[in-house]
Amino acid sequence: MKKLINDPADVVGEALQGMARAHPTELRVDMTNRVVFRADAPVRGKVGILSGGGSGHEPLHGGFVGHGMLDAACAGEVFTSPVPDQMLAATTGVDGGAGVLHIVKNYTGDVMNFEMAAELAAAETGGPVESVVIDDDVAVQDSLYTAGRRGVGATLFVEKIAGAAAEQGRPLGEVADIARRVDDGARSMGMALTSCTVPAKGTPTFDLPDDEIEIGIGIHGEPGRRRVPLASAHDIAGMLVEPVLADRDFTADGGVLALVNGMGGTPLIELYLMYGEIAALLDKAGVTVARSLVGSYVTSLDMAGCSLTLLQLDDELLRLWDAPVSTTGLRWGM
Amino acid sequence: MKKLINDPADVVGEALQGMARAHPTELRVDMTNRVVFRADAPVRGKVGILSGGGSGHEPLHGGFVGHGMLDAACAGEVFTSPVPDQMLAATTGVDGGAGVLHIVKNYTGDVMNFEMAAELAAAETGGPVESVVIDDDVAVQDSLYTAGRRGVGATLFVEKIAGAAAEQGRPLGEVADIARRVDDGARSMGMALTSCTVPAKGTPTFDLPDDEIEIGIGIHGEPGRRRVPLASAHDIAGMLVEPVLADRDFTADGGVLALVNGMGGTPLIELYLMYGEIAALLDKAGVTVARSLVGSYVTSLDMAGCSLTLLQLDDELLRLWDAPVSTTGLRWGM
Repeated sequence: MKKLINDPADVVGEALQGMARAHPTELRVDMTNRVVFRADAPVRGKVGILSGGGSGHEPLHGGFVGHGMLDAACAGEVFTSPVPDQMLAATTGVDGGAGVLHIVKNYTGDVMNFEMAAELAAAETGGPVESVVIDDDVAVQDSLYTAGRRGVGATLFVEKIAGAAAEQGRPLGEVADIARRVDDGARSMGMALTSCTVPAKGTPTFDLPDDEIEIGIGIHGEPGRRRVPLASAHDIAGMLVEPVLADRDFTADGGVLALVNGMGGTPLIELYLMYGEIAALLDKAGVTVARSLVGSYVTSLDMAGCSLTLLQLDDELLRLWDAPVSTTGLRWGM
Repeated sequence: MKKLINDPADVVGEALQGMARAHPTELRVDMTNRVVFRADAPVRGKVGILSGGGSGHEPLHGGFVGHGMLDAACAGEVFTSPVPDQMLAATTGVDGGAGVLHIVKNYTGDVMNFEMAAELAAAETGGPVESVVIDDDVAVQDSLYTAGRRGVGATLFVEKIAGAAAEQGRPLGEVADIARRVDDGARSMGMALTSCTVPAKGTPTFDLPDDEIEIGIGIHGEPGRRRVPLASAHDIAGMLVEPVLADRDFTADGGVLALVNGMGGTPLIELYLMYGEIAALLDKAGVTVARSLVGSYVTSLDMAGCSLTLLQLDDELLRLWDAPVSTTGLRWGM
């Protein structure tokens, strides 16, 4: 295993320390509970937006903490849900008196622990907590760690759009409805050229021969739909676009928000090339791209590969997507 | 070779097409000359800021085109200098009547071709062109492709700071002086965990055993200072910090700007962990970090590894670094 780490057991804590050092004015990192807070949390009168999950998906979630997006993110061990106590500390820490929204990727441990944290928070502070579970991955129904569909790229969209709605001062019920609407309108499909290597294990999570790729991979190296021979970017683009468009209609007015996301070990030059291929296929299918994002945002450690996420936009979602955001991983308009 | 590409010969052109599709309102891509322009270039009365070089270092340089940074970037083939005709088209395309600054990484081909382009531009338009050659890499004196020191991470600093000075309406001579001051005040050192693979070759540029790393690597897989056994992040941080601090004093008032840069195949969690290690060593050495940047900005295709760049700041350089910038790869304050 070749990684820039010390003891594998210390990776998450040491990375959080580095993040705290790198962003002292923007973030406040609670090292005991492993929660990344925006520096001014809690924001009085604003719905608190909280997410989190296993580490290894950076910049998700800690990189999306800041004005217009998350108020805090809980970091679990690599590919392991944070525990309810972390989520409870984060929930009370972002509660500015208008309630808290939990944005939860659909993995069994995350869902269970966020539910428990919500109950504990309600008992402790009485403040309302709502949850939205993200399940945008069309690749598989049920999987390792998941009942139903997995939550992947749409998590970023929900965090950004719900964060913008909260920043506008909307009440918890409305913010939660918007978050659910984003999840409902989003679909994803991913693929891997290589496996990832979890530091604590030290060897690749799965074996993938030099001449094969895995289509429908999850963000923890969970099995996908199928293995196919190594293919061109053009053909891979088809293998991502086709199942996404087969699962939902994306031709409504308003166009789509398209994310071409790198898995952590794939350089930007390849992601732009893939975006070009995907955009051409969307043209042919009559899908209009209104906004796009290309980069490594929802990663799987050092895995090489990419994913596509589409969200059907409408005027409101577009305005919320375009609203100013200032996080270490996503920043515009301010 | 496992990459998200089609024909290796088409990688650069297809990636540029994808970039043009992804950023239609911010960028204008001249596909004939392979030049990425900011959409409103040339900006009347502003010094034009131009850079470029071989592809494979994304987001450098095309990702730094936009308000407050570059007016254009020429893209060569992977790890190959653009030709003078591209640079000439870019130079005339960004000339808003106040002259043009060429920001050139110190590689023999780049230096020669930018010189030729400057002469051609002077003959064609008569507009003044100044050049600054970036040579911040302390690892080796002379190298494959280079006489003197290589230009690496400081290129980003020069592009940002000179771009901000140009945006303020400063004259060409001043902008060039500031650019040279940034290069003079910056030092870098890089390391690789793995080789990169150039698409046209299809096999790794060099062999690096599973238990060795290369210290002092260049951004094209050029040989570094030495190979050492695989080490901890803490020890690797020392191998980057020590030669940088040995080459220049960074303890002046104003503190430093620190870049911990990923080589393309290294995930963000490892870069933050490295930043924490490096920051602790800088503390011990009495070096104050005033600003930092952590991410993959000056890459080497899919190479795993990282580099450190320090710049001694003063009030003026700090103000210019903090000034608003709006590019696809770097954005704040607007």
